[in-house]
Amino acid sequence: MKAEYINPFVNATVEAFDKMLGCQVRRGPLTLKTERGTNFDISGVIGLSGNAIGTVVLSFSKELALKASGALLMSEMTEISDEVVDAVGELTNMVAGAAKSKLEELELSISLPNVITGKGHEIRFPSEVTPICIPFESEWGPLTVEVGLASVVAPVGT
Amino acid sequence: MKAEYINPFVNATVEAFDKMLGCQVRRGPLTLKTERGTNFDISGVIGLSGNAIGTVVLSFSKELALKASGALLMSEMTEISDEVVDAVGELTNMVAGAAKSKLEELELSISLPNVITGKGHEIRFPSEVTPICIPFESEWGPLTVEVGLASVVAPVGT
Repeated sequence: MKAEYINPFVNATVEAFDKMLGCQVRRGPLTLKTERGTNFDISGVIGLSGNAIGTVVLSFSKELALKASGALLMSEMTEISDEVVDAVGELTNMVAGAAKSKLEELELSISLPNVITGKGHEIRFPSEVTPICIPFESEWGPLTVEVGLASVVAPVGT
Repeated sequence: MKAEYINPFVNATVEAFDKMLGCQVRRGPLTLKTERGTNFDISGVIGLSGNAIGTVVLSFSKELALKASGALLMSEMTEISDEVVDAVGELTNMVAGAAKSKLEELELSISLPNVITGKGHEIRFPSEVTPICIPFESEWGPLTVEVGLASVVAPVGT
């Protein structure tokens, strides 16, 4: 996966948290996700297809998910309710949508966001795809963004 | 979601298990997934986009995942290894790909399969989408297929 495909996801995350939630997130060093490891408590997942196929995963600590959805909905959240699940899905959708619009050459379309809950869940990619993992810190707790993209033999639809 | 969109996923599942694994699966009654509930031990997830956006989830009991991947790889599988994860992703990909080819009017493209592991994981859809859940029984254990599709305002790419 080309490294220049990652920056749009980094920028989209920083901007979505800043503009939608008033929350500053600080990016840590990128890593290749070559080791297995569980995700945080609640993860938004969205599929990408076009001149590449892939997935974006935003994985939230419980505290961050509650605080972020509370900021989005202007209401205090205390448990992983349907509203919190929808807010995590919506944030995932925003990040994927903003990144997609910067990656014009890939002509990506995005699928529906799904949200995975369950302590110790792990979201795995096909073994031929090595996702890039971007850790973020915020005052509300940690977040990771994982992006895995694979090239397709011919553009979809041809 | 139109009911006629479901049959291609049912048929694709029956055919993939029969042709690829030599395993007969029997469909149970369709249900709307209106109640929350955990998925089985290991789930393949793939995004769909085009004139509708959505997700297909194939959720396997551990026994079924081991037996099915063993049949695909012609080798005995005893734990949820990378090979089992890839086999579950590949089966999910086959079902999504075969269903897509029957749903020409939706002009769907499919993303990369991801595989979720972790006992008690739950894969949730946006609250405005009610997925249809199709339970299957097989000699190797149970499987569910969940399909959630939402219409898009305009065809993607226009």
